Amino acid sequence: MIAATTRVAGVIGSPIRHSLSPAIFNAAFAACGLDWVYAAFEVTEGEAPSAMAGVRSLALEGVSVTMPHKEAVIPALDDLDVAAAALGAVNCVVRRGSSLRGHNTDGAGLVDSLRFDESVDVAGLRCTVLGAGGAGRAVAHALGAAGGIVTVVNRTPERAEAAAALAGPAARVGTVADVDGADLIVNATSVGMGADGQLPLDATRLRDNQVVIDLVYHPARTPLLDAAEAAGARVIGGVGMLVHQAAHAFQLWTGEAPPLEAMRHAAVAALAARAT
Amino acid sequence: MIAATTRVAGVIGSPIRHSLSPAIFNAAFAACGLDWVYAAFEVTEGEAPSAMAGVRSLALEGVSVTMPHKEAVIPALDDLDVAAAALGAVNCVVRRGSSLRGHNTDGAGLVDSLRFDESVDVAGLRCTVLGAGGAGRAVAHALGAAGGIVTVVNRTPERAEAAAALAGPAARVGTVADVDGADLIVNATSVGMGADGQLPLDATRLRDNQVVIDLVYHPARTPLLDAAEAAGARVIGGVGMLVHQAAHAFQLWTGEAPPLEAMRHAAVAALAARAT
Repeated sequence: MIAATTRVAGVIGSPIRHSLSPAIFNAAFAACGLDWVYAAFEVTEGEAPSAMAGVRSLALEGVSVTMPHKEAVIPALDDLDVAAAALGAVNCVVRRGSSLRGHNTDGAGLVDSLRFDESVDVAGLRCTVLGAGGAGRAVAHALGAAGGIVTVVNRTPERAEAAAALAGPAARVGTVADVDGADLIVNATSVGMGADGQLPLDATRLRDNQVVIDLVYHPARTPLLDAAEAAGARVIGGVGMLVHQAAHAFQLWTGEAPPLEAMRHAAVAALAARAT
Repeated sequence: MIAATTRVAGVIGSPIRHSLSPAIFNAAFAACGLDWVYAAFEVTEGEAPSAMAGVRSLALEGVSVTMPHKEAVIPALDDLDVAAAALGAVNCVVRRGSSLRGHNTDGAGLVDSLRFDESVDVAGLRCTVLGAGGAGRAVAHALGAAGGIVTVVNRTPERAEAAAALAGPAARVGTVADVDGADLIVNATSVGMGADGQLPLDATRLRDNQVVIDLVYHPARTPLLDAAEAAGARVIGGVGMLVHQAAHAFQLWTGEAPPLEAMRHAAVAALAARAT
């Protein structure tokens, strides 16, 4: 029950009414017995700075940040963590007193999902990242920081170069032919989302000694994952990254260890409810 | 369960962690099956205008306003209802698009409590209001508007004059001796609150044909109500006004009829929990 003592966090974005984050975070608070609540705030484009003023004046404990505000929120913050500064994008704001710090936990969410859910250590792995938008950049940065040897594949070479530059000196721009030699392949494009039925690569390039991750989580089983499984590869959906990036935010806000199973269960249940 | 679709309202004030409003409003939303949540926001003095910017940018549906912001919030609003304009004080803000309207439902809450809970119509009644602070002014204004003949009693004559001026041409400033001739007596001072054990008037003036209302609701039974009951008067506590002022806010925000019994039950239960 929400009371006068209940602390408030939430997510800002537009559109926001289909976000899975309220389900994930409220399940986490409940699992830990924390007197917190997490709500969705529809914040229209251009309103990110005034929304940050609102976070300060209403004393929200923190907010998740999603489209279209991940870059726009930065001028209204007091400081940034290493990932947010490198990426120029924030997915989580933490308030301490009247000071707001921007974090980016997306890439760490992917690396944690691999490490803790799948026992995959990316150090030394040849990682091909498809896509160089916000998600692709975050993934390239985190894989590089975790010791992966990153190749970025993207239609627009300039964007691929920028993403590769985030992934350390061993990183480079590649082509879909680089899928052949990859240990780990990450789809960070939106291809395969919804009912588009598309593949982000030529499935004949997939092999049985590869790990294939699709950041698309709706549907849970994308055409890419079907093709990868048919090729004998190990396949991983996008829910793990979603849960682990939220787990980082949970820990930053509350200082408590995140209840990962409750969060994953809530995400899967919310996705299942959406599919029906 | 709070989801991405859940609408957010709340209360701003400082201190705010003992407010009964979250219990009352969340019970009301639940009783009506509304996908809304009501939270408490600790907003420090001087921050009311930026909190209103936050209400706009985070698209809260509305907020209740309590101490110390009832006056300070006004310059940040787009317009005021009649009571708020007359009183120079707001206890409820309604957002429509980016426009914020300030209301004052405190006085109407008292009149509604008398009318609907106690079947007392104040039209033509001689009403003595003890106190000329925010509550006393709101009560004097509403009793006058409902046809009561108002006398205001207050230590500081200037404040009594200002409150009486809100209650229409028949209103005047009086003394505690006016309790003798009153049909209705309202304690709008804080005397009797908590464990102070004090009376706001000389109890020998109370008679069995009077109605005595104490706006103090903690404790539920104040020394004044004890004394009035001993004198044979009809006694009414402050919970009814609390519930009915909230009922007005509920209707302004949601457009639905307020579930009064659920709201009253929640208020009484929250007060009982506080007393233990």
